[in-house]
Amino acid sequence: MVLSDTLLDFFLETRNRTESICKPLEIEDYVVQPIVDVSPPKWHLGHTTWFFEEFILKPHAENYKIFDPDFSFVFNSYYETVGKRVIRTDRGNLSRPSVQRIYEYRHYVTDAVKTFFDKWGNQEINDLLEIGIHHEKQHQELLLTDIKYILGNNPLFPKYADFPVEHMIENRPGEWMAVEEGVYEIGHNSEVFCYDNELGRHKVYLQPYCISNKLVTNGEFMEFMEAGGYQRFDLWHSDGWDWVNQNNICAPLYWHKIDGQWHYYTFKGLQKIDLQTPLTHISYYEAFAYAQWKGCRLPTEFEWETAQPQFPWGKRWEWTESAYLPYPNYKKADGALGEYNGKFMVNQKVLRGGSIATPTKHTRPTYRNFFQPSLRWQFTGLRLAK
Amino acid sequence: MVLSDTLLDFFLETRNRTESICKPLEIEDYVVQPIVDVSPPKWHLGHTTWFFEEFILKPHAENYKIFDPDFSFVFNSYYETVGKRVIRTDRGNLSRPSVQRIYEYRHYVTDAVKTFFDKWGNQEINDLLEIGIHHEKQHQELLLTDIKYILGNNPLFPKYADFPVEHMIENRPGEWMAVEEGVYEIGHNSEVFCYDNELGRHKVYLQPYCISNKLVTNGEFMEFMEAGGYQRFDLWHSDGWDWVNQNNICAPLYWHKIDGQWHYYTFKGLQKIDLQTPLTHISYYEAFAYAQWKGCRLPTEFEWETAQPQFPWGKRWEWTESAYLPYPNYKKADGALGEYNGKFMVNQKVLRGGSIATPTKHTRPTYRNFFQPSLRWQFTGLRLAK
Amino acid sequence: MVLSDTLLDFFLETRNRTESICKPLEIEDYVVQPIVDVSPPKWHLGHTTWFFEEFILKPHAENYKIFDPDFSFVFNSYYETVGKRVIRTDRGNLSRPSVQRIYEYRHYVTDAVKTFFDKWGNQEINDLLEIGIHHEKQHQELLLTDIKYILGNNPLFPKYADFPVEHMIENRPGEWMAVEEGVYEIGHNSEVFCYDNELGRHKVYLQPYCISNKLVTNGEFMEFMEAGGYQRFDLWHSDGWDWVNQNNICAPLYWHKIDGQWHYYTFKGLQKIDLQTPLTHISYYEAFAYAQWKGCRLPTEFEWETAQPQFPWGKRWEWTESAYLPYPNYKKADGALGEYNGKFMVNQKVLRGGSIATPTKHTRPTYRNFFQPSLRWQFTGLRLAK
Amino acid sequence: MVLSDTLLDFFLETRNRTESICKPLEIEDYVVQPIVDVSPPKWHLGHTTWFFEEFILKPHAENYKIFDPDFSFVFNSYYETVGKRVIRTDRGNLSRPSVQRIYEYRHYVTDAVKTFFDKWGNQEINDLLEIGIHHEKQHQELLLTDIKYILGNNPLFPKYADFPVEHMIENRPGEWMAVEEGVYEIGHNSEVFCYDNELGRHKVYLQPYCISNKLVTNGEFMEFMEAGGYQRFDLWHSDGWDWVNQNNICAPLYWHKIDGQWHYYTFKGLQKIDLQTPLTHISYYEAFAYAQWKGCRLPTEFEWETAQPQFPWGKRWEWTESAYLPYPNYKKADGALGEYNGKFMVNQKVLRGGSIATPTKHTRPTYRNFFQPSLRWQFTGLRLAK
Repeated sequence: MVLSDTLLDFFLETRNRTESICKPLEIEDYVVQPIVDVSPPKWHLGHTTWFFEEFILKPHAENYKIFDPDFSFVFNSYYETVGKRVIRTDRGNLSRPSVQRIYEYRHYVTDAVKTFFDKWGNQEINDLLEIGIHHEKQHQELLLTDIKYILGNNPLFPKYADFPVEHMIENRPGEWMAVEEGVYEIGHNSEVFCYDNELGRHKVYLQPYCISNKLVTNGEFMEFMEAGGYQRFDLWHSDGWDWVNQNNICAPLYWHKIDGQWHYYTFKGLQKIDLQTPLTHISYYEAFAYAQWKGCRLPTEFEWETAQPQFPWGKRWEWTESAYLPYPNYKKADGALGEYNGKFMVNQKVLRGGSIATPTKHTRPTYRNFFQPSLRWQFTGLRLAK
Repeated sequence: MVLSDTLLDFFLETRNRTESICKPLEIEDYVVQPIVDVSPPKWHLGHTTWFFEEFILKPHAENYKIFDPDFSFVFNSYYETVGKRVIRTDRGNLSRPSVQRIYEYRHYVTDAVKTFFDKWGNQEINDLLEIGIHHEKQHQELLLTDIKYILGNNPLFPKYADFPVEHMIENRPGEWMAVEEGVYEIGHNSEVFCYDNELGRHKVYLQPYCISNKLVTNGEFMEFMEAGGYQRFDLWHSDGWDWVNQNNICAPLYWHKIDGQWHYYTFKGLQKIDLQTPLTHISYYEAFAYAQWKGCRLPTEFEWETAQPQFPWGKRWEWTESAYLPYPNYKKADGALGEYNGKFMVNQKVLRGGSIATPTKHTRPTYRNFFQPSLRWQFTGLRLAK
Repeated sequence: MVLSDTLLDFFLETRNRTESICKPLEIEDYVVQPIVDVSPPKWHLGHTTWFFEEFILKPHAENYKIFDPDFSFVFNSYYETVGKRVIRTDRGNLSRPSVQRIYEYRHYVTDAVKTFFDKWGNQEINDLLEIGIHHEKQHQELLLTDIKYILGNNPLFPKYADFPVEHMIENRPGEWMAVEEGVYEIGHNSEVFCYDNELGRHKVYLQPYCISNKLVTNGEFMEFMEAGGYQRFDLWHSDGWDWVNQNNICAPLYWHKIDGQWHYYTFKGLQKIDLQTPLTHISYYEAFAYAQWKGCRLPTEFEWETAQPQFPWGKRWEWTESAYLPYPNYKKADGALGEYNGKFMVNQKVLRGGSIATPTKHTRPTYRNFFQPSLRWQFTGLRLAK
Repeated sequence: MVLSDTLLDFFLETRNRTESICKPLEIEDYVVQPIVDVSPPKWHLGHTTWFFEEFILKPHAENYKIFDPDFSFVFNSYYETVGKRVIRTDRGNLSRPSVQRIYEYRHYVTDAVKTFFDKWGNQEINDLLEIGIHHEKQHQELLLTDIKYILGNNPLFPKYADFPVEHMIENRPGEWMAVEEGVYEIGHNSEVFCYDNELGRHKVYLQPYCISNKLVTNGEFMEFMEAGGYQRFDLWHSDGWDWVNQNNICAPLYWHKIDGQWHYYTFKGLQKIDLQTPLTHISYYEAFAYAQWKGCRLPTEFEWETAQPQFPWGKRWEWTESAYLPYPNYKKADGALGEYNGKFMVNQKVLRGGSIATPTKHTRPTYRNFFQPSLRWQFTGLRLAK
């Protein structure tokens, strides 16, 4: 548990950082939604604010005056308990409330939480605040990846900023780390904050396995491409093969062949591919096909969690072979907060690690990220096992 | 033909008015595209500018320096001759170029045309300028109707401005105007500017008919609604009935039943329906079904053109029964300008008249507007014939 | 008006011919529906029978015992007045009622009409019978073209029969037939049966024009193909160009390039293209693009009707430039029969003439066929005008 | 390993049974494909035959004369290695080859295998024959469930036969069977035939759990329906809730409310719901929602396999909470047979048990069936765990 004063600092720091991420944007960049998986930055700003208003201020803060009653309709995401959700594809059509008005909303709610904070002494509200902070940190990561998508799909390929730095080379020899057969413990077991999907620490039995100490690089993936990997159906799942063909996939997301040479869009703009840098922006299907081609496989999330003290991680979210399922004895919370994780536990794959877009203190060895297997706009990557 | 000095004034006045229309907007309103038929205001600003750059400055103005070579890709609309068109549904994803940059582009091109204007003495270029001006005026109307759509589909229903005034009552008794059987002449025959689709004045034979001197009002249409008009398939075309059912249509566009009372969104915001005001925002299918229900029909475009001196018009674009087809001896122009009208002469209906959103001097008795029969976001209306 | 005995013969001959058309089929061929525009042959057999049961026997024949009450649900087509229609795409899923059962239904209803016929002496019922016969003749044409589609889209390309003969050469020099400007009369004016959409004979004013005395041939169309006609957007309507690209159209329907040589599927099986034969299985869009390429145009339906005594016709349904619209004073019949024609008078093009699949006595100079502009499975063709 | 003579008997018995299943069908029933997941019976007859021709006769039987070279195109399913697959949705359009011709194909291939069988003495070919037999048995189950779908979606609801009997009551008190925490072994370990996805027997660690000795019944599920289970989003996965709403799901497949009373379609025709009978034709989403509502959960496939000796099973395929993933050390076979299982190991759920449509000897405690979570046309069911 975090002490209260620290918690308020943590809250304020988090609120500030979200706004810092938006600093380099033009007003117009806050508005668009090129695909359903991406939300407009203005929506992230509003939604993370709405969360504190809805779950802390409205039910607990006496005399709290709601900023604008329409906002709970506009900024709810998928919380069916709270009200009729806005259809996700519509977010990109909402020119109002304006960006300025949303910033007013943010500051109003931040101030209200701060004021209210002095008056409560309540663990329940502390817990709500902490989950709200972590919720906002999760959205900081989405904000960055959504901004990259918005600018990286603009024909002018505008630069965002010199940060975050996407290219961090793992500058050491590759090795296979061996793990012995046996019973291991999986799941969260410290005082640190975690989500409900990490709880229920429990035993699993692992067969002996090896896991690489390095992520797969752009150069290694380019060998797969040159070997015709995207044309060889035997390397792919049936669903993956359909995905490749229906979307004419022939390279990772953001890669463009210009005058015969591969480039990719980065936060700094278009650049030549760096061969040493860990590969990113691939789907699970591509990760799997690459592993097949190498005669290897992806680790399960349990193998990853067990082996992770032996290698550095945190540059890329790493696809695992594991489906996103509840741990034994998983219980989802009552009410709207119970919708946070449990209802997504089907048709998704687990990713482990964290990425250059992940806020500090926002990941840990037991953190379970999850996405549909075709998605690529996160800083996804790939580590082999065998 | 317009004299040259007047032409330059006409050009400058037109350029100004486009920008005036956008004055009441927030930056965010310039960006969004809620449906494919609607374009973002910033796109209209850029596209009308691109037209002058592409067809006058680039080919004719010596030493003209292109503002930004990427813009011809971004702001082309459907001119296949000029280059690969941007897929229409993508317009709403383009946060860049920014609104400010597009205004710079506008002023740069306006100035370049003005400077260049003093040097030419050429009828061909005068003609191109004139078509460019009329093209921009056409977009002024779309700009207004697109703005209405963008704001009118926002759950906050923001006000645009106190103009244009949508509610102009036709305050006189309704009458049937009779026209005798015979041969009449149709098509443009004056010195005034017109589009190629109005040319080729020719004879048509009309049977005797009557046409109403008034547009159908909201109140009259509400009777149709109350009589179950939207539920009676026998009043509808087969395609119209499918359209009603697939889209759950039960009222004109922008109508909302709030606490048991019908309202509509107007440029001023949500208002109660005014029963005396001419009906608007209906599809051809609805116009046809209403006429069927009244035991009448819509006029053809030839009937309308012949009878129009006998009644006031210009508040609503009026659906006709005529399909949009070439007049006898219609010849489309060579090159990109030939794509202006001819290629749309299938699957569309002719509308005659003009609307409160039509710029002054931009319509005339022979003007042929055209849309797919399901579209409603223009200020469409309905006049009965029999 | 047809005399009564002849009418009964006409009825029986028509009922027989429908069944003759199905003789060459395997049971399996009766069942499938490869695209929504095509109906399974068994459905045609049932639907034409249902028409007599529904509109003559049920309301007029005393003591008539309905064959099977479920059939009115299964075999209704688009008659909203009569009951909930079966969704068209579902027809191909109905393995029952079996083909044999449908033949039993046919014979039962044919006999019932015959028996009932001796008892009535009523012009109204004669008229209903006549419309039912013509309805069945219309379905005979669809039956043939649907059979061609079913077999022609089977990878085994099975032969249907040696008839109808598709290849009839117009063996005479091509000429332009000139027609003078003036007022002409259009529409049905004889005692012969016609549909309501041909009625209301009326005057039209035609400008002077020329029309070809021959249909465009396969050889002529191949020149268009070789000249890149399918790749030149300037020859196409905007909708036509979208259709070409979305469907990868590069030749008429049923054409296949095999070992470098063009073949087409015919009722006799795959054959080499005959260059002299009139072109068929093209959409309106293709007809229009070809005419543009030749510097000509398609005739209007009024031009065609006026000029038709001067040239032979009847091998191909000929696309016209005319949209399918009501004639002046068109009134649709009350009740279900009123749905026959009027409700399709939007978004369709008129075809004139008749084809090798048209039953004898089933077309005439004033007959108006109509289809959406993209459809090709009828024996459509093309005659130039200028 | 099965001894050779027995193997031939097993082969012949299997070939015969497939044809017996089709005995009650009309020719028309062999042809249709109402949804993509269902294949026409004639396709099953051809495809199971093609398997023996393609993998045994063509590569191994000297002088074997291929029955018809076009058939490998028509009857291949998803084996990308063998050739261009027929798009699945097209199967229902193929009226030819006729049913009779497919029976000729079957008998030709059955005879050829029999003749060839006397000459070989080869374990490799025995193995291929065995896998072909099991492949055909798998299709026998699909054949039955596809026939049920074809007839059960026909508005005439025709009876198939008096078998298989769908209603087998589990006539004993319900109990929770407890299993202790510990390491258990999972996967195939006997001489009996199994698929590659069952191999790689390995240890798993199970937490203590309880599993029901009975399947959930129709009566119990009806309580869920009456409690508004289909309207309570908190019981559903997010994907499941979308599935319910997009498809208007309000009951298991084949259930119809007639005159206020629930009925279901069975092989015998429409019948009243039997409350004691185990529930069937539900999706994973429905199984999960029911378990949530009961405060329980579905067992994992490992829990099921470990506990299964303690309860009877085999009436319904039972949804588990497990995603379909490879066992440790899973290796897919080379070539086309490698496509059998491995390429489906994403986005699917494991089912365990077997159903009344499963051929005898075709399931076992380690058998892993798998389907997308929304599918319901198999005889799926539900057993609770906690």
